Formats: sequence, C-alpha cells, structure tokens
Amino acid sequence: MRVLFAAPSKGWDNWAPHLRAACPEMELLQDGEPGSFDALIYAPGYPESGEPLDFTPFTRARLVQSLWAGVERIVGNPTLTQPLCRMVDPGLQAGMVEYCLGWTMRAHLGMDGYAQDGVWRNPIVPPLAPERRVTVLGTGALGGAVARALKAMGFDVAGWSASGRAVEGMEVLPGADLHAALARAEILVSLLPDTPGTRDLLDAGTLALLPSGATIINPGRGTLIVEDDLLAALDRGQVGMAVLDVFRTEPLPPEHPFWAHPRVVVTPHIAADTRPSTAAPIVAENLRRAMDGRPLLHLVDRARGY
Amino acid sequence: MRVLFAAPSKGWDNWAPHLRAACPEMELLQDGEPGSFDALIYAPGYPESGEPLDFTPFTRARLVQSLWAGVERIVGNPTLTQPLCRMVDPGLQAGMVEYCLGWTMRAHLGMDGYAQDGVWRNPIVPPLAPERRVTVLGTGALGGAVARALKAMGFDVAGWSASGRAVEGMEVLPGADLHAALARAEILVSLLPDTPGTRDLLDAGTLALLPSGATIINPGRGTLIVEDDLLAALDRGQVGMAVLDVFRTEPLPPEHPFWAHPRVVVTPHIAADTRPSTAAPIVAENLRRAMDGRPLLHLVDRARGY
Repeated sequence: MRVLFAAPSKGWDNWAPHLRAACPEMELLQDGEPGSFDALIYAPGYPESGEPLDFTPFTRARLVQSLWAGVERIVGNPTLTQPLCRMVDPGLQAGMVEYCLGWTMRAHLGMDGYAQDGVWRNPIVPPLAPERRVTVLGTGALGGAVARALKAMGFDVAGWSASGRAVEGMEVLPGADLHAALARAEILVSLLPDTPGTRDLLDAGTLALLPSGATIINPGRGTLIVEDDLLAALDRGQVGMAVLDVFRTEPLPPEHPFWAHPRVVVTPHIAADTRPSTAAPIVAENLRRAMDGRPLLHLVDRARGY
Repeated sequence: MRVLFAAPSKGWDNWAPHLRAACPEMELLQDGEPGSFDALIYAPGYPESGEPLDFTPFTRARLVQSLWAGVERIVGNPTLTQPLCRMVDPGLQAGMVEYCLGWTMRAHLGMDGYAQDGVWRNPIVPPLAPERRVTVLGTGALGGAVARALKAMGFDVAGWSASGRAVEGMEVLPGADLHAALARAEILVSLLPDTPGTRDLLDAGTLALLPSGATIINPGRGTLIVEDDLLAALDRGQVGMAVLDVFRTEPLPPEHPFWAHPRVVVTPHIAADTRPSTAAPIVAENLRRAMDGRPLLHLVDRARGY
C-alpha cells in the first residue's frame, strides 16, 4: 500500500519514524504520482503553495486521514470525494496538560525575571506552589485534566465553569462567580471553548479584576480575549505576562503587536497538537482498515461537517 | 524584644510580612543602635559595604539566627561570640523540587525554540513526558524527592547514585554505571553534593556521553562541572542548554562567559533558597526561645563549624 504523507506542516522528520514503526508494511512517501497512492495522510498546508489541494487526481485513494481533530478547513474542499477521517489522538490531552503545567511553572518561578546581563541579583524568592493561586477557566475534559494536574503539583487551584461542572478535589466556581474566579487568579489558565458565552469574556472590565501582575495562559480559543484590551492591561502592568497559543487570526500576522510585546509569548497553536507517538498507531489502524475494506474509524459525515 | 533584620540580600520586603505574622510581639527593625538589639536575623551581605559584620557592639544579643543553612561564611568571623543558629527550612526541599520540575518542563517543551520574531513556524511537537528520558544524579534527600516528582509528572526517570541509594519506583544506577546514566539523559539534573568523587565529574569525556542536544540542570554544586568543557560542549551542540544555579565562584563574575552564552541560563543560587513562608515560623520559635532563655534550635557548634 502506497501512502502519501501530505502534511508537511506537521513535519516529515517528526512523523516518519513513528508512522514507519506503526505500519512497517506500508510504503510511506513525501511525493509521487497522485494516481499511484492508496491513501493520504493529510493536514492543511499541502501543497505548500497555499492553493487548496486538488484531490481529483488521487483516483486510487481509499482514505484521506486528517492529522487534525478539527476538519472544518478540509470538508469544504469540493474536490474531496474520498473517505475523510479525522484524528482522535489520545496524546492530545496529555500534551495540553504538559503545556499548561510547563508555562504555569515558568510564571510561578518567575523565570523571566533572570536577565542574563552579568548582574547577580538578590533573588525574589517565589512562594511555594501551595501559596500560589491558579484559576482554570473551563472544567470540561481538558480543563478538568489540567486543573487536577496543577493541583497534584501543589498549586492552590480553583476552577470556573459556566455550567458548574465539578472537578474532584477542588472548588469549582459557577458562572455567576466569574469575578471571584478572576480576583484570585495570580495565574489564569483558560481552556474555554468558543461559544457565544465565552467570546470576549476577557475585556478591559474583567482583566481589571485580576491581581496586579497576573499571568494569563490561553491554549483554549482566541476569541476569549479582546486583544487591544489585553495589550492595554499588559502595558499598565495589570497583566504581567500572557502566554498565548490561540488567536482570532491564525497564523498570527507578522505585524500583530503580540509578537513584539516583551511580556507576550506567542506559541503557534501547539498546545493540543497531534502527537506522532500516540497518533501514528491510530493512522496505522485506519490504513489497515482501508486496505482490507473494513469500516474506518472516525469517518467524517460530510453533511454534519465533522 | 528588639530584633535587627541584618539580611538585606534576602529582601526586607520578602521577609518582613512573614516574620511579623510569625512573631507579632517582636519589634523588627532594619537598622538601629547595635547595643539595643536582643537578637539578629542574619545573612552574609550585611553590611552592604562588603566588610565583615563586626558583632562586637551587639552586646545585648542573645541570638544570631542565620537565614542560611550553610554557615561556613559566618562561623569564621572572629567578632562573633553570640549564639549562632543555622536555618533548617522545611520549604527548602519543596522549592528545590519546584525549581527542577519547572526547568525540566521548560527544556522538555522546547520553550526556548519559540522566537518572538513574527514568524509562525511549523511546530516541533515535543514527545510526551513518558517518552522523555531524565537522569537525576544524586539520590539523597533532595535528589530522591526531585526524581520522585519528575516520575509523578510522567517522565522516564532514572537515578544515579555513587552509593547506590534507592528511590522507590525507579531504577537507580550504581556508581559504576555513570556512562549508562549519562547516555540516556536527554535532560540531566544534578543534586550531587561537593565531594572528592563528584568534583569535575562533568568534563569533556563525560559530557560527550550525553545525547546530542541534552539539557543540563545543575542546582547542586558548582564544582561538578569543568566550566570550559561545558562551554565547548555547548558550542558544538553536544549540550543544547545548561541551566546553572551554582558556580565555582559566587557571585558569578560579570565577565564570566556563562552570562553571555545564548544557551546558558544563570540563576543566582536560588533553587534551594530559604522560603520566608516556611522559615519565618522557625525564626519566631528561636526568637522566643532566646527571649525565654530556653535551648535554641539548630545551635552551631563552633568547633565542628556547623
């Protein structure tokens, strides 16, 4: 079975070893005659010209396996008639937890206060984790896992959930208590989805509720934050650092002020990226199913769009 | 009871609130007539002129409470005749664990690969923690606690101990297996003490055993590392990042090449700093003992030097 790796944005070097280990019987290639491939492993950004991929010449393909969980940028392609499967990666949640723990620790320890300028400064000793108040906005599957992991590291964690969804072992403030949830948040981590209720939730008024110098970590959805209000809050020190993985426009345009702000860290939508180690076996299983003509996993229903 | 806070390097603003909360009955001051004080809370660096403190005029002082665990820079002061107590801070181990977790996460997640230069790069997706091999050199009280915490976060941890001291739930390689301990160490954390056996342990020969691009985190002792050999290993990419908290000469001189190296992070001997929140109650207890004439805790034996 000849398989085209049509996902250069995911990195051939990252993926090829894991895919080859998971399905050594497949012939995995980075390019070739479209009509010769039995399946595609796909992510938007192929071809690299930016043109939408023309799936028409892939006449033999029995599977287009997305490496993205969300396929909204794929289903609309009118040339796509082959079966499309979305990625459901068990490593995604673990990766999200690690991202949130890592950046929370960076803020907690004040790592960005150590200028490498030759001056041996008297240390500002950070409080220990139990003295550090962290609020996690959103207590769904991802937010709950992040909140539990932060609590296990010793932080003083509270959740906030519009629906009041509980997390074992900690206080979860209900929707009406947003002010209290923000007022305690020396470090604020948001895993909120994009809904009418969460859109523009962090604006000038709510940002002003945070403790002075608070850190915001947002690997949830870019629509949460009114960007100009965040920049103003950063400039007056109300917000001390913002670690942003998601944006209203992605890729974040090169001229966007977030890039140049000394107290903003931009990461390129990586917090919940698909992990080769955990996703490769999922891809391999679907390739085998396609080869054998068995039912595919996570087949996208074009009518519903997911 | 009048108490002089003679430890400006520790930060008055950090300490005063915790000390006042722990012993509200004491009169805590930053300066005053030496003969008027009943006790000193002390750390080297007072006076700030750099001259050794002349303890002679502190005729009423019944206690000199060090904020440092190590008092080797204090016991040699010939003017010191008052009772000297060293600090035994229960927060020190917790702080060390947090330091090691935080910097390990920073290396693991490749945080330093995100240049804030306006370019939205295809992410290099890091492996998940179980796929990341971390070696902890030294499995004493601190090293064991760090190793267990890293393991609890999911890392693939092994210890190395010259004496073969075990850590529950993980492999601890014995002294003779140093090569194996280093060869697996994508991230190397050292909590080794300064002994004839650990001095210069990381030199050109042993650094060459590390996986290419390894991270070294050293909050143990500065004598572990042959500094020129580390710089050479960094320059050829054998070592990808070094996070150093301890040095052969402290404070690290302004002209030292570590400060200017783009892949070295210098922190000013803070990993195991005394924590005001946990140390203030220890100080308060000793101040009360001094006031009442009861036996002092952690009284230094001048003959032994600790």
